[in-house]
Amino acid sequence: MRTLVSELTARQGSEVTVSGWVHRIRDLGGVSFVVLRDRSGSAQLVFDTKPAVTLESVISATGTVTANERAPGGVEVRVRDLEVLSPAEVDLPFPVNQDPAKMPLEAILDSRMISLRTPAILSIFRVQSTILRCFADCLRAEGFSEIKTSKLIGTGTEGGTGLFEVAYFEDKVYLTQSPQIYKQALVAAGFERVFEIGPAYRAEKHDTPRHINEFTSLDIELAFIESEQDLMDLEGGILSAIFGGIRESNARDLEAWKASVPDPALCPKIPRVSHDEAREIISRETGKKVYEIAPEGERTLCEWAGKTAGIEAAFVYGYPRKSRPFYTYPADNNRSKSFDLLFRGLEITSGSVRINRYDMLLENLKTFDLPPEGMADYLSIFKYGCPPHGGFAIGLERLTQKILGLGSVKEATLFPRDRRRTRP
Amino acid sequence: MRTLVSELTARQGSEVTVSGWVHRIRDLGGVSFVVLRDRSGSAQLVFDTKPAVTLESVISATGTVTANERAPGGVEVRVRDLEVLSPAEVDLPFPVNQDPAKMPLEAILDSRMISLRTPAILSIFRVQSTILRCFADCLRAEGFSEIKTSKLIGTGTEGGTGLFEVAYFEDKVYLTQSPQIYKQALVAAGFERVFEIGPAYRAEKHDTPRHINEFTSLDIELAFIESEQDLMDLEGGILSAIFGGIRESNARDLEAWKASVPDPALCPKIPRVSHDEAREIISRETGKKVYEIAPEGERTLCEWAGKTAGIEAAFVYGYPRKSRPFYTYPADNNRSKSFDLLFRGLEITSGSVRINRYDMLLENLKTFDLPPEGMADYLSIFKYGCPPHGGFAIGLERLTQKILGLGSVKEATLFPRDRRRTRP
Repeated sequence: MRTLVSELTARQGSEVTVSGWVHRIRDLGGVSFVVLRDRSGSAQLVFDTKPAVTLESVISATGTVTANERAPGGVEVRVRDLEVLSPAEVDLPFPVNQDPAKMPLEAILDSRMISLRTPAILSIFRVQSTILRCFADCLRAEGFSEIKTSKLIGTGTEGGTGLFEVAYFEDKVYLTQSPQIYKQALVAAGFERVFEIGPAYRAEKHDTPRHINEFTSLDIELAFIESEQDLMDLEGGILSAIFGGIRESNARDLEAWKASVPDPALCPKIPRVSHDEAREIISRETGKKVYEIAPEGERTLCEWAGKTAGIEAAFVYGYPRKSRPFYTYPADNNRSKSFDLLFRGLEITSGSVRINRYDMLLENLKTFDLPPEGMADYLSIFKYGCPPHGGFAIGLERLTQKILGLGSVKEATLFPRDRRRTRP
Repeated sequence: MRTLVSELTARQGSEVTVSGWVHRIRDLGGVSFVVLRDRSGSAQLVFDTKPAVTLESVISATGTVTANERAPGGVEVRVRDLEVLSPAEVDLPFPVNQDPAKMPLEAILDSRMISLRTPAILSIFRVQSTILRCFADCLRAEGFSEIKTSKLIGTGTEGGTGLFEVAYFEDKVYLTQSPQIYKQALVAAGFERVFEIGPAYRAEKHDTPRHINEFTSLDIELAFIESEQDLMDLEGGILSAIFGGIRESNARDLEAWKASVPDPALCPKIPRVSHDEAREIISRETGKKVYEIAPEGERTLCEWAGKTAGIEAAFVYGYPRKSRPFYTYPADNNRSKSFDLLFRGLEITSGSVRINRYDMLLENLKTFDLPPEGMADYLSIFKYGCPPHGGFAIGLERLTQKILGLGSVKEATLFPRDRRRTRP
């Protein structure tokens, strides 16, 4: 029966079998120390003679749990029996037991299969797993259904650019940029409240620390809302659940990155500023007049929110109609019922109230100079009765990146796909 | 403040506002009845004069909740104020308020945007949402982490056939058939226990009621197992959680399909028969000697399990090595440490212990006549220490189909992609 490293402190004096990876080896002549790593943490094993193991080999060791103040966790295992379950070759391509901050990102990603073993790197994805859990739990508690929709579509809802083409038997289809059309269809079909967690694709040639070509989109759509304020209320609640969950479950992972999450109680108080107010704040804070909200402005706005509200996040609403998709509900001739959420300097969410009336949607297609041809499936959602609704999407990797303070979104992606990277 | 239909019984005598879709209209001259449908159910609205509404229009109605024995739920709403939020045109392409069993599958799928409004059809996906929840909850409780891996790979782990090709900038990549390589990488990276819920693709020309080209794979991989029996134990526990969850949350959805789930307590007792025993049972039950387990044999085996164990499910283990992927752990020269789960006549899971030793894997590649070239990333998982492990995958749509007794897996897929269907 295997004992996890995290259970050793409670097993002092007992004989146990621990299993895991050889993280570090230190040979002092008469005695050898091996740091063993398992999914729950690390522990020191003590051998009388140098064990025949290599770094990263997977072993099972049986011995007695003994107190040792200087060992991590205050205990060590004095080994009497060792079994090598899977020996590792010695030409390890990545220094798993070193600080990953010292390694260039390209080296980390080139050796992804091995670099993921680095405890701090694995921590990133334990945090991500918590985000996935808290996101779904929070929405289910609010009556949302989870949906799984196709990632292959005949045409793009948001125009044909930026789409990856797939050879589908004799046909050509595209990878979806978002489940927009489908989540609206499901709201209108009677679910009223849906969420989807799935991959989304952007065939854009950006090569920046905040862009990847395949990401995980946390998508939400809900009916019978009054305005975009309802959507921001919901997102505040979701973030509160996520930050609370991470505080509870990921203390050692936050510690690995010297990171902290905002106070969950402050999420409902994230400042909400109109697009015009946002530009004024940025102008005032930087002393430079701004006309558009650029990435630098997003950082300034989050710093301002940190100072004034204690949380480095800000909702910006009322974006110009022409800068948002055609299905965005207009607020007036120029403004739309849309919003973004900026968190620690980065846009992590885009959302809006959607047009739910067929006549208004047809009119807006004209305004955007888009032909209704090829959109029959999408338009049928509205032609036959569709409740007022809206929604938004959170980028899972960007949220993870900003929670842990990582330099690039690629660090927060298990197997990132970028302009040039298609492996491992 | 909106009241849900399910809350009406408790609100007798009060004035409420209900919102939803016009499901049925009955005009009796002096009085008109409208059945209103929302996410929680249906209720009868009573009007003194015929309201100007069409089927499927979205309305809000304000009135008094009044007892009426003959109305569903024992109450109806006597409406004093009606608002049409979104009028539906009258050429409805699908009869939403009719029994979907009377409609051909092709008509249901061609008008998917509208046919999903049919309450019985929407029920299918409420059950599916429960499956997703219970699957994840059950595994998290067992210490599993949730992962999200790329669906785009340079080469197929299981050979190059059956892959959809994606034009990726100047490169060509493929849609993944399964997250096999990645879930093994994450187990070896130290998570030990992972699950992933994501799309999987098979570019196969099958056109049967049990094949689709894009499906949702519920994938599991875990380390430090002793044998494939551990995997079957785990899957029994997962099914028990799913069936229990559906019993608790989806009574009206099961009722819509006159379906029932097996007793959760019987899941740990699902019969486990070897491949050889399975053939003997099928031969004995049918009176015909069988050499391979064909779909008819799978049905026979499930009927046999229903008679002998009270649950129409059977694990079959020990498949011939040559019929399983190269990474399957051999049991002997001919047999592998693999298994399938058959449920109500259909294979819903395939799994195995995986080869975790580098030397054995290289050897097996030779046996399978596969070149190690192009597999460097995969092989590095094992070259540098990998614990004993195994895993399996459950097809979400097939499980949903069999729980509800649907004729085709396509009915259990929100937006199915098959040989010819790429919309909506």
